Amino acid sequence: MVSIGGTASTTSLLRVMNERAVLAEIFRRGKASRPELAQATGLSKPTISVALADLERARLVRPVGLRTGSAGRAALLYEVRPEAGWVLAVDVGRSYVRFALADLVGEIAVRRDEPSRAGSHAELVVQLTELAAEVVAEAGLAAGDVTLTVFGTPGVHDKETGALRLAPNLPGWELPGAVERLADVTGSPYIVENDVDLAVVGEGAYGLGEGVDHFVYVSLGTGIGMGVVIDGRLYRGARGAAGEISYLPVGEGDPLSDPGRGMFESVASADGVVAAARNLGMVVDSAKDVFDAARRGDEAALKVVSAEVDHVAHALAGVVAVLDPELMVLGGGIGAQAADLLIGPVSERLTRLVAFRPPRIEASMLGADAVLLGALAFGLATARDLVFERLVAVTPPG
Amino acid sequence: MVSIGGTASTTSLLRVMNERAVLAEIFRRGKASRPELAQATGLSKPTISVALADLERARLVRPVGLRTGSAGRAALLYEVRPEAGWVLAVDVGRSYVRFALADLVGEIAVRRDEPSRAGSHAELVVQLTELAAEVVAEAGLAAGDVTLTVFGTPGVHDKETGALRLAPNLPGWELPGAVERLADVTGSPYIVENDVDLAVVGEGAYGLGEGVDHFVYVSLGTGIGMGVVIDGRLYRGARGAAGEISYLPVGEGDPLSDPGRGMFESVASADGVVAAARNLGMVVDSAKDVFDAARRGDEAALKVVSAEVDHVAHALAGVVAVLDPELMVLGGGIGAQAADLLIGPVSERLTRLVAFRPPRIEASMLGADAVLLGALAFGLATARDLVFERLVAVTPPG
Repeated sequence: MVSIGGTASTTSLLRVMNERAVLAEIFRRGKASRPELAQATGLSKPTISVALADLERARLVRPVGLRTGSAGRAALLYEVRPEAGWVLAVDVGRSYVRFALADLVGEIAVRRDEPSRAGSHAELVVQLTELAAEVVAEAGLAAGDVTLTVFGTPGVHDKETGALRLAPNLPGWELPGAVERLADVTGSPYIVENDVDLAVVGEGAYGLGEGVDHFVYVSLGTGIGMGVVIDGRLYRGARGAAGEISYLPVGEGDPLSDPGRGMFESVASADGVVAAARNLGMVVDSAKDVFDAARRGDEAALKVVSAEVDHVAHALAGVVAVLDPELMVLGGGIGAQAADLLIGPVSERLTRLVAFRPPRIEASMLGADAVLLGALAFGLATARDLVFERLVAVTPPG
Repeated sequence: MVSIGGTASTTSLLRVMNERAVLAEIFRRGKASRPELAQATGLSKPTISVALADLERARLVRPVGLRTGSAGRAALLYEVRPEAGWVLAVDVGRSYVRFALADLVGEIAVRRDEPSRAGSHAELVVQLTELAAEVVAEAGLAAGDVTLTVFGTPGVHDKETGALRLAPNLPGWELPGAVERLADVTGSPYIVENDVDLAVVGEGAYGLGEGVDHFVYVSLGTGIGMGVVIDGRLYRGARGAAGEISYLPVGEGDPLSDPGRGMFESVASADGVVAAARNLGMVVDSAKDVFDAARRGDEAALKVVSAEVDHVAHALAGVVAVLDPELMVLGGGIGAQAADLLIGPVSERLTRLVAFRPPRIEASMLGADAVLLGALAFGLATARDLVFERLVAVTPPG
């Protein structure tokens, strides 16, 4: 916080910095009075008044009532105008596409899920574009009203080529320029992030990771991946490939026999579970069938689950050895469907594989919404900056 | 940087903050003039003059000559007084103890290595105490002159019990209070850090990690461990056990058969290499014997090296999958003795195990001094703060 003198001599740059600080504090509190803002930011009350006037003129904040009840004069409260900005969060998965449109304070206005037309890149882009238009219209908005769109996809977005790497479940997206087509979906500024990286952000914002400094979100399902939070912040690695634990050297899979899939993913993903079950003579369509059979006591299914426990425990032992996290959250399709079958035995198995008592392992409470909520949390933080830049920072101070 | 008005109204707290900023800048530059300090810190020249006068009075900085040659008046240069503080760095290993005593600008005054009397905790403490006294005396100092002692040890220092965990190579140190005995070695304030964590700090300060944001230092030797730097800073994990890769699920070792050692360490450490060689009928005393034999083309030795390559490649694949570092530095006894036999084949093997092109793998250039240099770098940063607190911050401004 910078304050020279207080009011009159405030330069334009300082004024913008002060406004940004005041706005951030209102976001943090939801509602805030002048004295509260002065105390929290260290700025003088006249400076706060100038900043609030500017923010109100830019239609970013508004007065919302009085705080009464405590001693002294009732204080006028300010809040962020929710409709000052909009974030569209999109989870682009092989099985489903999920949309959430939220205002600038994170209130979700429209929510939509649909089976994904992921078989072809072109069809999927059409589907995303149509759905985005419907969702925006349903909220009574025009396309240009969306401040920011955040797409969560599998794999790693290679910004040099515009291709999606390590996303075998989205055919066509490995071609150069494939990701850039997302620009047409809403026409608004957009961000493409790895889905599991977003899931760990969602878990930190709305789930079990709230207030936890070092934790991971392990997604077990069609694919396998991990999001890593270190010191409360998403850690992406040198090339955006941190947490690509499908490549952990676990299990008997030969990565060369299945290009694009790592050893661990070959054996422990949904396909790996189904293949193992079929090897034992089971007739199943999905990993869910295997887990259901295991709950009924089917011997072959129990063997498959036991192997899955072993693979997951070895993978998590590797994660613990490298990262020593406080918490490991299990998500993804298998994480959601089979937490009851996996978490206890995995924790027990892990005890024999790691140096210290293993960290807590828990099933995500966000379920299938983890990626979407992460996209929202991620988008809101960025959209607030965008809206501020657009409405306030470029306006010459009055 | 905080500056209100410039000089006269400077409060005591601001004055200390300004002095700290000026001192940090002199440390960074080595030598600095008033105008340079004003430009770098954003403080006014009168404020710089007040700060320099205070720092000089505290005997922390001194004028050191004039900068001439450029246009305008020659500028008086200031530098840190090297003898304003001293750091004793100690690497406590199973085979060797190593000492370095350096002044506050990092110039090493005395250096000493000796075979370690690690067989008993009491004997090792006596040895460390005697050697510390000799080193300090050799520099012409009294014990009280050492600002800070930094000990690098294997394992994880459990601050609750005062014991050293996961350090099977230092018998006796697993007992409660064992680590606290290090307080008597010099009587100065002291820090105990994991040796491999210090090695990665050393590699970042003086070695291949300079300027690299995300990298790891993998120590292969008597024990196995890894230091992790993320965003340019040491990452310790939730319980100080990040990088305990001896517990990676690699190789055939059963951790239960060898308590205190992980699966990977059981097969890939120096003992693991010797055991594998003896299993193949070789008569060897050390891992070095095996590597020498491999260089002579001995078939059994080549088999052992090939297995070592395989184990190390699988372990590093796990590290890459989780962390995606830019650089992996190999150190430790095996890293130093057998880099020529390992790095090429490990890199090649790794290519088949990971998602992207593997990160660079290089042998540490710091050799056996990595831990000691890390202890020094770590100690210098802390000692500078300690000296400042002692000499400046507690002195009421004159």
